[in-house]
Amino acid sequence: MVWLTQLLALISVTTALDNGLLRTPPMGWMAWERFRCDVDCKDDPKNCISENLFRDMADRLAEDGWRELGYEYVIIDDCWMSKQRDEHGRLQPDPLRFPGGIAKLARYVHDRGLKLGIYADMGTHTCMGYPGTTLDKIEIDAQTFASWGVDYLKFDGCHSNPVEQMIGYPRMSKALNATGRPIAYSCSWPVYVGGLPPNVNYSLMGEICHLWRNYYDIQDSWDSVINIVDWFSNNQDALQPAAGPGRWNDPDMLVIGNFGLSIDQARSQMALWAIMAAPLIMSNDLRTLSNDARAILQNKVAISINQDPRGMQGRRLLQEKSHIEVYWRPLSNSASALVFLSHRQDMPYLYHTSLAKLHYDPGSYEAYDVFTGRTMTGLTHTTDLKVSINPSGVVMWYIYPTKHKRFHNTWKEHTLSTYHVDEAEAVPPEVL
Amino acid sequence: MVWLTQLLALISVTTALDNGLLRTPPMGWMAWERFRCDVDCKDDPKNCISENLFRDMADRLAEDGWRELGYEYVIIDDCWMSKQRDEHGRLQPDPLRFPGGIAKLARYVHDRGLKLGIYADMGTHTCMGYPGTTLDKIEIDAQTFASWGVDYLKFDGCHSNPVEQMIGYPRMSKALNATGRPIAYSCSWPVYVGGLPPNVNYSLMGEICHLWRNYYDIQDSWDSVINIVDWFSNNQDALQPAAGPGRWNDPDMLVIGNFGLSIDQARSQMALWAIMAAPLIMSNDLRTLSNDARAILQNKVAISINQDPRGMQGRRLLQEKSHIEVYWRPLSNSASALVFLSHRQDMPYLYHTSLAKLHYDPGSYEAYDVFTGRTMTGLTHTTDLKVSINPSGVVMWYIYPTKHKRFHNTWKEHTLSTYHVDEAEAVPPEVL
Repeated sequence: MVWLTQLLALISVTTALDNGLLRTPPMGWMAWERFRCDVDCKDDPKNCISENLFRDMADRLAEDGWRELGYEYVIIDDCWMSKQRDEHGRLQPDPLRFPGGIAKLARYVHDRGLKLGIYADMGTHTCMGYPGTTLDKIEIDAQTFASWGVDYLKFDGCHSNPVEQMIGYPRMSKALNATGRPIAYSCSWPVYVGGLPPNVNYSLMGEICHLWRNYYDIQDSWDSVINIVDWFSNNQDALQPAAGPGRWNDPDMLVIGNFGLSIDQARSQMALWAIMAAPLIMSNDLRTLSNDARAILQNKVAISINQDPRGMQGRRLLQEKSHIEVYWRPLSNSASALVFLSHRQDMPYLYHTSLAKLHYDPGSYEAYDVFTGRTMTGLTHTTDLKVSINPSGVVMWYIYPTKHKRFHNTWKEHTLSTYHVDEAEAVPPEVL
Repeated sequence: MVWLTQLLALISVTTALDNGLLRTPPMGWMAWERFRCDVDCKDDPKNCISENLFRDMADRLAEDGWRELGYEYVIIDDCWMSKQRDEHGRLQPDPLRFPGGIAKLARYVHDRGLKLGIYADMGTHTCMGYPGTTLDKIEIDAQTFASWGVDYLKFDGCHSNPVEQMIGYPRMSKALNATGRPIAYSCSWPVYVGGLPPNVNYSLMGEICHLWRNYYDIQDSWDSVINIVDWFSNNQDALQPAAGPGRWNDPDMLVIGNFGLSIDQARSQMALWAIMAAPLIMSNDLRTLSNDARAILQNKVAISINQDPRGMQGRRLLQEKSHIEVYWRPLSNSASALVFLSHRQDMPYLYHTSLAKLHYDPGSYEAYDVFTGRTMTGLTHTTDLKVSINPSGVVMWYIYPTKHKRFHNTWKEHTLSTYHVDEAEAVPPEVL
């Protein structure tokens, strides 16, 4: 019963994390999907979970154009800890793999204009068996992270029960606030209780966490990506309203640049994560990224759609018998994004539609094709649209009423440097 | 009963197709997987099934280095026909899409040093509803194809029953032979009766057909590729002994260069098709192929393994709990090929093994890594091997006893032009 008392006391922690952080979805890099729990620094020194890995990634984010695009968080995941807390009961990093300590690593990251994220687990042990954060350790761990200069906490939920989670996740929110340091707070809570109401209270989630993992871990395969998209879309009535500035659903990391996605599939993940207002947190090897993957992850218009200040998550509008799906997200300034996704496995499909069929208001529009850089002018809601969509690929459009915005494209495809506005009256998309 | 008589008469058509064709698996290009039954030449003139498409692909095969590597067949699939036979009962091409006729297209192809394949269907209609080849039409269709100068027939099996198939497939074999023109004969018969003994008699198959489709059509996805590989491997005891010079299992087309495979997955298909002694028949758009796809499809050592004159199909040797699988194919001159395949979806896996564990005889070996171009020297059967395999990727080695062959690699990776033999005693792999 003491637990229930604690529980009720915690209900008062509403808007605890309405602290101005993450008004748009976080962007950055996280270790897990690509580097897992590789702690073998002897045989695999370049890839093991160590301060060197995070310094390498911070260097890449700072030097290769990522930071300027918004990719700012460098996030440590599981397996960074020593197997024992220190003599004061504090978490401490593995001394061989993080000899400089986390505070020094945070300074390294901050010196490059970036932010550091770290991982802990609400429970007796982390998922990989390192020291967990039991209820009695929440305050000390929050204080430790703040003292190190940490800017983001991923709080996992292995090895705890639902009652402990119901107490622990809000308590960590309060504890982070109490440190006085602005720390973004990512909660894995929903995924441990099924991800859906009534087990999950998404109003409460938005009040205590900046973002939360709703569903299973992503893996390096198209199967995994599309399974996640299907689940989020099938449950969008429960999930979509939960998102907004400072509170985000998290379908997990971007796996673009690894081994399992084709170029078309990589574009699909980028487009759908933008529609879903999802965190753009890459897990890949930025040291060896292909130019194709880089171009997709650094697509300025896709990023600007993801980061739209209105912060409204998009929805799946249509599932056609042809296995074409249409996704839509309303954006600031009367603009919107459309994504046409092909679930086919044969050949490019020519999809016929119109903006009217997609519930657009009568009027004149222009559309910018996010991945080809082409602009379509002179559209009205009744214009016949023929969209060729590759198997497991997407076509993504940024659409705006002509009165509001207008621009012309003089680029070569895939470059974003020479866009110019054509008319005095015209206003390009914010990003351009 | 007349059917049974015919059936018995046909049993005598043994070795009918032991006509010297396809002593190694056929290589070339086929329309189906990439272009399907696109007959809309008005809206999609570049991609519709028409003589222009096949001329385009013949040009590419002849001009872009494919022909010299062995890719010689340009194969028409379904949807080339007029919906009606001509006044003499002969098949005829659609007059709008093939205005020049097939004979002229064959000359175009032959003029470029290539060979032309065509499609027909044992049954009342083709799979897409064009005129089928019923039992009474087999001779006339064989004669028509020969008169046009066709070099290869894919004989599908939609819209027929097993008894008709049992009569029709051998009869077509005999009819093709009777034309006097050497025509390679691809039978879809096994797939229509389940692909396995006792429904399929693979000894008979090898006597009447040069190759045969055992299993479902491939699609443009890794799921499809790996499903096919799993089926062939799970049934390798029935399938592998059926293959040899002039008689090949056909796991279907290479989809490398389309939309659904990552680079690693594309290498996996190339490697596994080489192990399986499978036809290397691409279905992609050779006009727009990426350099990555081209490099994989034009990998000379992978091709030479596929085309090994001994013609023995390889096998899956091991399925590890780690989700690593090992494939092996014995080659001419005491050489062999090994493929390490990762079914994982996380990160590169370091697999520890030795040649002894893979049943190699005691001795000294060298190994050439097919996709990196690196050579490992000084191996013995007991050398500890550490193989890093990407998720859904492969590592492929060409291995040979040191006494027999030896070479040194002075290339840059992925180029095959500057290989040279280092010692008087050394013999490079045939292809190099």
